[in-house]
Amino acid sequence: MSEVREKAALAKKAAAIMNRMTTDQKNSALLAMADALVNEHASIAAANELDITRGRENGTSESLLDRLKLNEQRIGAIADGLRQVAELPDPVGQVLDSGERLNGLHITKISVPLGVIGMIYEARPNVTVDAAGLCLKTGNSVVLRGGSAAIESNRKVVEVLRSALAQTDLPADAIQLIEDPNRSSVDEMLKLNGLLDVVIPRGGASLIRNVVENATVPVIETGAGICHTYIDQSGDPEMASDIAFNAKVQRPSVCNSMETLLVHEAFAAGHLRSIADRLLAAHVEIRGCQRTCALIPEAKNATDADYATEYNDYILNIRIVDDLNEALAHIGQFGTMHSECIVTENAGQAARFLQAVDAAAVYHNASTRFTDGFEFGYGAEIGISTQKLHARGPMGLPALTSTKFLISGNGQIRG
Amino acid sequence: MSEVREKAALAKKAAAIMNRMTTDQKNSALLAMADALVNEHASIAAANELDITRGRENGTSESLLDRLKLNEQRIGAIADGLRQVAELPDPVGQVLDSGERLNGLHITKISVPLGVIGMIYEARPNVTVDAAGLCLKTGNSVVLRGGSAAIESNRKVVEVLRSALAQTDLPADAIQLIEDPNRSSVDEMLKLNGLLDVVIPRGGASLIRNVVENATVPVIETGAGICHTYIDQSGDPEMASDIAFNAKVQRPSVCNSMETLLVHEAFAAGHLRSIADRLLAAHVEIRGCQRTCALIPEAKNATDADYATEYNDYILNIRIVDDLNEALAHIGQFGTMHSECIVTENAGQAARFLQAVDAAAVYHNASTRFTDGFEFGYGAEIGISTQKLHARGPMGLPALTSTKFLISGNGQIRG
Repeated sequence: MSEVREKAALAKKAAAIMNRMTTDQKNSALLAMADALVNEHASIAAANELDITRGRENGTSESLLDRLKLNEQRIGAIADGLRQVAELPDPVGQVLDSGERLNGLHITKISVPLGVIGMIYEARPNVTVDAAGLCLKTGNSVVLRGGSAAIESNRKVVEVLRSALAQTDLPADAIQLIEDPNRSSVDEMLKLNGLLDVVIPRGGASLIRNVVENATVPVIETGAGICHTYIDQSGDPEMASDIAFNAKVQRPSVCNSMETLLVHEAFAAGHLRSIADRLLAAHVEIRGCQRTCALIPEAKNATDADYATEYNDYILNIRIVDDLNEALAHIGQFGTMHSECIVTENAGQAARFLQAVDAAAVYHNASTRFTDGFEFGYGAEIGISTQKLHARGPMGLPALTSTKFLISGNGQIRG
Repeated sequence: MSEVREKAALAKKAAAIMNRMTTDQKNSALLAMADALVNEHASIAAANELDITRGRENGTSESLLDRLKLNEQRIGAIADGLRQVAELPDPVGQVLDSGERLNGLHITKISVPLGVIGMIYEARPNVTVDAAGLCLKTGNSVVLRGGSAAIESNRKVVEVLRSALAQTDLPADAIQLIEDPNRSSVDEMLKLNGLLDVVIPRGGASLIRNVVENATVPVIETGAGICHTYIDQSGDPEMASDIAFNAKVQRPSVCNSMETLLVHEAFAAGHLRSIADRLLAAHVEIRGCQRTCALIPEAKNATDADYATEYNDYILNIRIVDDLNEALAHIGQFGTMHSECIVTENAGQAARFLQAVDAAAVYHNASTRFTDGFEFGYGAEIGISTQKLHARGPMGLPALTSTKFLISGNGQIRG
C-alpha cells in the first residue's frame, strides 16, 4: 500500500475517535501540542536549518528562505496560535435546527466534523501547525502534504505534535504527514474518495489549478486573488489615494492585495497623477491602458494577460474607464471573485457595486486588504475560499464542519 | 462555439439579471410558468407521445415508459409544484451575520444566488420543471441536461417555460436546455469552470460517478443510497418488522429505501423468520450471510458485491451480526452516508449509533424512507446530498444559495 493511502486510512480510523472527543479533550490536546513545540524548539530549529541550508545550496532566494525560517521566537508565536485556537468556541455539536413533524418524528440538525481533511500547501512550515490545530479543534483528522522545501521542518514538527497527542486522549494518527516529495503523492491524494472528505489547497495559482482540475475528492478552492479597486467619479481624492496605496503596497505578496486599479475618467483627469506618483515612489511598476499611459508616461502598456495575472508583487495595472458599467464589466471578466472595492461618495453607485459584483468580499471605501479571518473576527483562518459552495471568503472554524440529521421516532413508517 | 458553451454563456449573462430580481418578480414568473404549462398541456403531451413511441420502439420497459409519461393530470401536478415553490420563503438576500469591527468597518454576510447551476439528470421530464422552478426561485440561472429518452418532452416544456418568462421581468435565458444527446455534451458541462458555478447530478450510480470523477466544476453529489436498518437485541419485534418492511417494500426504487438489514443474533433467533416471511410474501428476494441462510433456507448467499450494490429493487441483503460494533463496521464499510437506522429500545445503544454513524440522516426507530425534503418540512427538494460539503441530506432552497460579505467603511486601511 502506498504511503498516501496507508496514512489516509490511519487518519480515517482516527477520525472515528476524533468525532467523539469533547471540547475539553480537544483543547487540552492543543495546549499540549503548543507546550511540546516550545519544549522542542531547539530540535525543530535544527531540522529547519537543514531545509535552509539545502534551500540556499539550491539557490532559493533569501526572501523565501526567510519565510521558511523557524527560530525560538517564531516557534513560540506558532505555539501561541494553537493556544488561541484552544480558546475559540467549538463549532462541533451545535444544534443548528430542531423540530417535531406532524407524524411525531423529532428531527435535529447538528454540526459534525468533516472527517478527514487533506491539506496541500507550499513552503511555510507554520501552515503545518496551524492546519493541524484547526482541524483537530473541529474534530477532524488531517493529512498534511507540505512542500518539499520544508520537509525536514515538517517532519520534525509533526513528530513533536504526534508525540504530544500520544500523551492526551486524542489519537496521534489524527495528524499524518505525507513525506513523499513527488508530485504523484499529491495526485494520489486528489483521488482518495472514501478516505479524504475534502482537500484544501493553499499556495500559488498553479498548485490550486492542479488541485481543482484533478481532484475527484471535493475541494475548497482558496486564495487566488485578482482584486480590483474602482475609484468612482465622486471618490474622495485623499481616501482614494490612501486605499489604493494600502491595497497595493502594504503587503503585495498576499491574495487580498490589489492587482488592478480602475479609475473613472473624470476622477483620473484630476487625481490619477498624484496617486501614481505615490505608487512610483514606493517602487511600484505601473502598467496602464492607453489613456493611463497618456496621463502617466512612466507606465508600460497593459495587456489582457496583465489584467489576468495575480502579480503578488510591486506591479499594478491601471485602467481608466468611462463609468461604473465599464468597471463592472472589467471585474466580471478578470476578477477571481475574491475581494473588490469601490471608492465613492455616491451611495447609489456604492449600492449598485455591492449588489452587482460577484465576489466573496465587496468593499465600499475600505482597503481589500481586510479580507482575512482575523480581521473579520473569526480568531483563526484556514484560508480564503474563492468558490461559492460550502464556504465563501475567509474561513473560520465552522468551515471545517459538516452537518448530520438525527431523527428519533417511535416506529414511524412512510405511507 | 459549442451548444453547451453558448447556452452556458447566455445563462451566465442572465444570472446577472436574475441576481437582482425581487421575490415578487420571481414568484410572478413561477406562477406564469405554471399557467403556461397548464395552457399548453396538449402540445406538451403530444411532444411527450413522441418520446413514448420512440421508447416503446426501442424496447423500453412499460414501467420506465410510465415514469416518462406526461398527461394533463400529471402536467397539472407539475404546475402545482411550481405554485408551491412560489409560496416558499425566498432564501436570497437574508442577512446571515452583521457587525461592526473595532476599526469601524461594518461587515454584513448575506445570502446570494449561486449563479449558474448545471443540472444533469435522467429520464423524467418533471425534473426539468422542478429544477427550473427551484433554481429561478433562488435567483439562479439553470442549464438543464436531461436524458435523451425525454428530449422531445424536455424541448417542448422548456420552450413553454421560456415563452412564459418572456412575459415577465425574468430573462428567458435563465433557463437553458442542452439538446445534444451525446455524452460529450455532459463531459463539456463538467469542465465549464467560469460559466457554471455548480453541477448537480440526479440519476443512477453510473451517472453520478461520471460526474464526480470528471467534473472540475464544483459538484453536489446526490442520491446514491445503500441504506441499512440495524435491529438491535432489544428492538421491539413488531416495530422492527414494520420499519424493515416499510424501508424495503414501500418504494424500493428510491435512494432512501433499505438495501441491507443487519440483525443482532439474539433478535434474529426469535424474530427474523417472521420478518423474512413477510418480505418473501411481498416477493422480496433475500440474500443472506451464512447464519441468515441457516435460518432462512429461501435466502441465496450474499457476497460483498451484494452488500456494495444499491438494488433499487425487490432484493434485500440480510446479515446477522454479533453486536452493535459489527453493525457499525458493516455500515462504515458499505454505506454511502445517506440514511441509516437502528431499531432498539435501549437508549444507550441508540445514542451510540446516532453518534458513530457517519451519514446524512441517522434514524432511531423510524423508517429510512423519511429522508426527503418534503418529509423534512422544506416544501421542496433539489436532491439529497451524500457529500459533506455545502449541503448534506435533503436539500431545500437554501442549498441553492451562496454568501457574500459586504463591507462598508469610511477610508479604513490596514496597518
